[in-house]
Amino acid sequence: MTKKFLIDQIKKKQSFLCIGLDTDINKIPKHLLEEEDPVYEFNKQIIEATHDLCVAYKPNTAFYEVYGAAGWQSLKNTIAYIPNDLFVIADAKRADIGNTSNMYAKAIFENLDADAITLHPYMGIDSVSPFLDYDEKWAIILALTSNKGSNDFQQLDLASGSNKLFEEVLRTTSQWASSEKIMYVVGATHPEAFQRIRKIVPDHFLLVPGVGAQGGTVSDVAKYGLNDEVGLLINASRSILYASKGEDFAEAARKEAQKLQQEMKDFL
Amino acid sequence: MTKKFLIDQIKKKQSFLCIGLDTDINKIPKHLLEEEDPVYEFNKQIIEATHDLCVAYKPNTAFYEVYGAAGWQSLKNTIAYIPNDLFVIADAKRADIGNTSNMYAKAIFENLDADAITLHPYMGIDSVSPFLDYDEKWAIILALTSNKGSNDFQQLDLASGSNKLFEEVLRTTSQWASSEKIMYVVGATHPEAFQRIRKIVPDHFLLVPGVGAQGGTVSDVAKYGLNDEVGLLINASRSILYASKGEDFAEAARKEAQKLQQEMKDFL
Repeated sequence: MTKKFLIDQIKKKQSFLCIGLDTDINKIPKHLLEEEDPVYEFNKQIIEATHDLCVAYKPNTAFYEVYGAAGWQSLKNTIAYIPNDLFVIADAKRADIGNTSNMYAKAIFENLDADAITLHPYMGIDSVSPFLDYDEKWAIILALTSNKGSNDFQQLDLASGSNKLFEEVLRTTSQWASSEKIMYVVGATHPEAFQRIRKIVPDHFLLVPGVGAQGGTVSDVAKYGLNDEVGLLINASRSILYASKGEDFAEAARKEAQKLQQEMKDFL
Repeated sequence: MTKKFLIDQIKKKQSFLCIGLDTDINKIPKHLLEEEDPVYEFNKQIIEATHDLCVAYKPNTAFYEVYGAAGWQSLKNTIAYIPNDLFVIADAKRADIGNTSNMYAKAIFENLDADAITLHPYMGIDSVSPFLDYDEKWAIILALTSNKGSNDFQQLDLASGSNKLFEEVLRTTSQWASSEKIMYVVGATHPEAFQRIRKIVPDHFLLVPGVGAQGGTVSDVAKYGLNDEVGLLINASRSILYASKGEDFAEAARKEAQKLQQEMKDFL
């Protein structure tokens, strides 16, 4: 998917919502357990109920790998079910030496046919560049994540200048390709950082997890994160997926998604 | 597997060799393509031919994910085929927020039943700790990798003291659990760094890729990397797996493994 197409979708739907498909078989409504593939069935109904309110889905690969080959098939079927005008992010958090990243790129961009993958920056340029060789596919690099452990290394001060590690990651990796190919993960739990981040990467889309179950808010993120081309995808997972544990789960998910979309509309 | 058991195996076999199962269907001998699962068949024959010369196997998950659900099944079958007295490292290079790392730990330690997983440190403590909650399972954290991109971030100087980032990763993460649970990846392409690394983590096992196809040597690594309890697993992948492209591939792999084992014996 091109950047222009994504922006057009955001404007059309008045939403920059991404829904995380972190589907946990222990949390989905009990009546679905009778289905042949309960995880896929759950995802299908979530997608049917929400696809006009969001512009992206983000299946988290861990939640599928945990069921081995069958889980991988559920993931593939889920991605195939997502309408083509939605941006699909495989939240896989990969990256390895070039030879191996080539294989991950094939797995995610060809076998699964996702539009984007999340990547760890720690191994540097040749661990990321194989993902940049695909047209209309995206590398979404971890910059400042939403979790407690983001303080351990990402926020370390570097000897050269006033940079923290995550700022150096933004500065360095944004030289590897344009904002048509790279996005960044920045957690909603660090609203104070968005101003500094926007100075380093004014044009890049930021994928923002941490709204909802993790405590971040749309308005805090939008206030400093939006740019001229929107430049934000805000992700919510658990607060939407598990809004109800009953047979009305899809309807309840739609209501939660709608709340977020309504909040977003006011910023567009 | 316990540290003691691993060390006993190393002494018994006079080898600290790990064989990387980065099995690429485009590089295996043509006659295997007639098999129902050529990748698994190749791995089986490699394991049969080499298991008395090495103490560990390291399947690289990317090479299996590239074939989707079928590839994941080949990976599972391969791990199940490895004899129990060998240490199995899922070279998966994962790590995510706690909630998700829990799922990766289940996928790798329960579903696949590997003994260890390689992890990116970038997301900090809660991305690693779920892997430390398992008895006799290991987190192998990336410190200084063998690739060119290891210069981009791992070698950055930090503001506090004389630490580079990879040294801070060693210092910080080695507080999270003992050398009975954590190992580190240190590339053979940085022999000059082993002395400094051994000062920070004297007791930890180091998993060392980069010997063979990537240019590192056993003697350089052993000279500064060995400790009182051996403390090294040296990995070779392509130089062993693809020693011959013919029907004698397993025999040729055995010869390559034997060369490395003979070199290692002299250091034990």
